[in-house]
Amino acid sequence: MKIEIITTGDEILQGIIVDTNSAWIAERCWMLGHEVVHHTAVGDDEKAIGNVLKAAVKRADCLIVSGGLGPTVDDITVEAAAKAFGIKLHLDETVVDEIKKFFERMGRPMSQSNEKQALIPEGGQPLPNRVGTAPGVQVKLGKAECFFLPGVPRELYQIFEDSVMPWLHKRSSGVYETHILRCFGLPEATIDERLKNIDFSHVRLSFRVRYPEILLKLIARGEGGGQAKKHIETAVHAIREQLGDVVYGEGEIIMAEVVGKMLRNRQMNIAVAESCTGGLIASMFTDIPGSSEYFERGIVSYSNLSKQELLGVSVDTLRANGAVSRESALAMAEGVRRISGATIGISVTGIAGPGGGSPEKPVGTVHMAYSAPDKTEAFEHRFTGDRERLKQIFAMTAINMVRKCLLSV
Amino acid sequence: MKIEIITTGDEILQGIIVDTNSAWIAERCWMLGHEVVHHTAVGDDEKAIGNVLKAAVKRADCLIVSGGLGPTVDDITVEAAAKAFGIKLHLDETVVDEIKKFFERMGRPMSQSNEKQALIPEGGQPLPNRVGTAPGVQVKLGKAECFFLPGVPRELYQIFEDSVMPWLHKRSSGVYETHILRCFGLPEATIDERLKNIDFSHVRLSFRVRYPEILLKLIARGEGGGQAKKHIETAVHAIREQLGDVVYGEGEIIMAEVVGKMLRNRQMNIAVAESCTGGLIASMFTDIPGSSEYFERGIVSYSNLSKQELLGVSVDTLRANGAVSRESALAMAEGVRRISGATIGISVTGIAGPGGGSPEKPVGTVHMAYSAPDKTEAFEHRFTGDRERLKQIFAMTAINMVRKCLLSV
Repeated sequence: MKIEIITTGDEILQGIIVDTNSAWIAERCWMLGHEVVHHTAVGDDEKAIGNVLKAAVKRADCLIVSGGLGPTVDDITVEAAAKAFGIKLHLDETVVDEIKKFFERMGRPMSQSNEKQALIPEGGQPLPNRVGTAPGVQVKLGKAECFFLPGVPRELYQIFEDSVMPWLHKRSSGVYETHILRCFGLPEATIDERLKNIDFSHVRLSFRVRYPEILLKLIARGEGGGQAKKHIETAVHAIREQLGDVVYGEGEIIMAEVVGKMLRNRQMNIAVAESCTGGLIASMFTDIPGSSEYFERGIVSYSNLSKQELLGVSVDTLRANGAVSRESALAMAEGVRRISGATIGISVTGIAGPGGGSPEKPVGTVHMAYSAPDKTEAFEHRFTGDRERLKQIFAMTAINMVRKCLLSV
Repeated sequence: MKIEIITTGDEILQGIIVDTNSAWIAERCWMLGHEVVHHTAVGDDEKAIGNVLKAAVKRADCLIVSGGLGPTVDDITVEAAAKAFGIKLHLDETVVDEIKKFFERMGRPMSQSNEKQALIPEGGQPLPNRVGTAPGVQVKLGKAECFFLPGVPRELYQIFEDSVMPWLHKRSSGVYETHILRCFGLPEATIDERLKNIDFSHVRLSFRVRYPEILLKLIARGEGGGQAKKHIETAVHAIREQLGDVVYGEGEIIMAEVVGKMLRNRQMNIAVAESCTGGLIASMFTDIPGSSEYFERGIVSYSNLSKQELLGVSVDTLRANGAVSRESALAMAEGVRRISGATIGISVTGIAGPGGGSPEKPVGTVHMAYSAPDKTEAFEHRFTGDRERLKQIFAMTAINMVRKCLLSV
């Protein structure tokens, strides 16, 4: 089956946003064994959208169109399609009710402009949106089955998975398996180098850089009988042999969740003292549902005074070594463990920039420490990047430090 | 001038890589006052590439094509173009020399397969590539000026900046102005509703949802003499009249920076006590360079014990009202102000879910408080969303609370 993707929106054409939806859609089509033959992006212009649709239905069996289903005046995709193919739109009362209910859950009245989101082409059907107001629309245009989806990624993902995937799946043959290995601690080129001797003839490997992490995505196709799954397992085994504990998890899990599980299994809890990361480590830990079981408290000791008052770091330690030092990091980790009574205390103190660097301690320098009943350790790292990226990698490195220290416990 | 972007490559169509080049190109075209009207992606297929080019030259004055200039057998973009338009290719000896020199600098001999990169269409000219082997190609196809560029981003950027930008710049007329208004506190549909009576005939308005914020992007065209700028100013004035303090900033500034500036101007500092936001508010404040001037400390009092120990919230308050209550929020804000000595103390306590909700206090309920020498206030809100989105909107609402409280100081 030949599929075309059409993206609408001035923001895409003007380069305001990068279109990540198309790659996401294309990958799922590919996994189901369908071929995406063409992808077009077009602005919020009724005539242009109509022309693109008319050309596409001549080439493809299925169109997946995204964007322009919102409530505002420049959201015109469905109207443009209806006009181009001479189809009438009707107000679908069930959809109006759904949108009203959505607003009720939000505790707000539905705005008049949302009503146009319930206009469905004759012969078509709405595709439920559980996370937003715009339903998708499925309708046959010419000889092509067309799916209209919102441009907002999370809404598009949900409708695609709920309504488009099953449709595509019914029309596909073969079995596919997909798997993700999550890596932290090595750059992309080094990982690539280490994996170069592995035979990937049965598996498609792609790198996804999600700074500061690298995800390895594996996709295998098979004829059934667990063939695809076996291909994946063989590849995972070979990759893990090369990368060791650089692979911190598999699938949808994130680093803070891996560490959270380790803490829970060991019936331990943790307290965090942060300086340069400014609360980001605490925020990452508490992103995980149920983290209150093991996350005891976080201290963002941004000022030197707060390091003394809240963590008991001595003036002498700060004066002799500076706040960004192995000694201060150790005192902070021990301090937060002592005052909180948590099993583990960790600390991070560094220079995220752009100011505050010196020749001895340039921007990107970070000290972190781990304090537990059985061991206390301090680590120094140097990274490059802007303030935002440094905060990210400092925080991830600290959480990874906990993981590595716990691996042997 | 109408521009079309064409991207070639199976990897793009299969979703293996996200096409970031097109947004990069589109933004530069837009900045020079040219309109990108269409963007197409097509696989490494000679006939498909030819068809796309033939359709595009009928619509556009200029095509920017990327990908498929490499040395391998599936790099066929220029051959496909030559075949589609009946143009001969000739081997450009100067280009061969350039490629040879490139390999010399790398300390390797030129591979035979690289020679095809020196095939230039008759009537066309090579565009120098300083960072790789594939030169760009400029050639007129039909009535459209076409630029063929490599798909590797750094090579594309260099050739585009050196050879395409000057060509586009010469052909741009008029003056463009662009401006962004940043809004928080109202949904997109409500903002749209409030702005519907404004005359936007001289300005193009577009919405960019960056949850939980909404950005309004204004674009004006003028003939010079400050006309475009005046159009923007008029629109900004009209929008601000309708939206009031929902507009929290203009341009690239973010909420924490706006509040940071307000604190600095008033020579105040702030301390933050967070429960459900888990450090996110502190992290947002400390994302801003120089925030150590006014951000004194943050307490992530996740456990009830830490609320008592670190903030002095009484057991009675917690027991009588629960941790998620107006009373606890007030005690937390006052506590963090008292222990830190900061001018302002704020607190947030709520239920980010997915667990922990009750009929009286469902997931999404949040209490927050503001404590300053001149006033103490508490606020209750209810939002919907998953844990991540709730944390985001809780944190932004808290920082916005500081902004609103300071507006009158």
